[in-house]
Amino acid sequence: MSTPTTHDTQIALDPDVPLVRITREFDASPAKVFRAHTDPELVKRWNGPRGYEMRIDSWDCRTGGSYRYVHLAGGEEYAFRGCFHELRPDELIVQTFTWEGMPDGVALEKMVLEELPGGRCRLTATSLVDSFADRDAFVASGMEVGVREGYERLDEVLAGS
Amino acid sequence: MSTPTTHDTQIALDPDVPLVRITREFDASPAKVFRAHTDPELVKRWNGPRGYEMRIDSWDCRTGGSYRYVHLAGGEEYAFRGCFHELRPDELIVQTFTWEGMPDGVALEKMVLEELPGGRCRLTATSLVDSFADRDAFVASGMEVGVREGYERLDEVLAGS
Repeated sequence: MSTPTTHDTQIALDPDVPLVRITREFDASPAKVFRAHTDPELVKRWNGPRGYEMRIDSWDCRTGGSYRYVHLAGGEEYAFRGCFHELRPDELIVQTFTWEGMPDGVALEKMVLEELPGGRCRLTATSLVDSFADRDAFVASGMEVGVREGYERLDEVLAGS
Repeated sequence: MSTPTTHDTQIALDPDVPLVRITREFDASPAKVFRAHTDPELVKRWNGPRGYEMRIDSWDCRTGGSYRYVHLAGGEEYAFRGCFHELRPDELIVQTFTWEGMPDGVALEKMVLEELPGGRCRLTATSLVDSFADRDAFVASGMEVGVREGYERLDEVLAGS
């Protein structure tokens, strides 16, 4: 096949706590998907919606490290930053996340990878904030498009790596 | 006075989100209280319940830094670690927090300092987790004693600094 299989991205709003839960399968091992989230040269090939370029200003991707990156398109810049609370190779990343345009908004993000039969894996990513209004505004801002398109781009990176 | 005035510590469970909110006044400026949270020599004089010694294993207290410390008493050790998402001098600290005995439990913590008349300040500290059960177990574990006694010890540090 010249194009990779893509899978559906489920984006669910938790009814009880102000959390978004994203579930996605990939036709690649947890090790490959983990590396695509930690190696900056791979990250910038897929992170964000189509049509955006990603510039990584700092990337110290380890337990206790931190990051800052910028998405650029049409003369606009959107900067994001946070710290890495924990990395467990091929399994878990826990980090904080702030869009600098709203510097008081901080999300606690967890990404979990589970191995599936046939060399595949399931990614579950949760994003927790401290109010339902902020969670719903984040989702209404168009975050879903960025997530879905980003994971389609990740499929392409995994197929070629 | 030979002993500092102490203030009541309010510990409230948010009814809508899995968050604990601690409110406490101090007879000291935001700058002094901020320094007592960031200077490791001061932190270890008050952080934790009475009767515990605090050993700081790492302390890179800046936006993007991280920390690990241990509370010791009676031959027992309790280790805690996390990363510093943001520090705004004399105003705000946002960090993650994990007790290593429960390594999958991660809290997102914000401490805000507001100046009050008469050289005083109000501290508001929130701790957000991703489930009400975990939040309530954390409070039931005796966290309130540690918080109240820690702030009484902090009053003593501030009175002497």
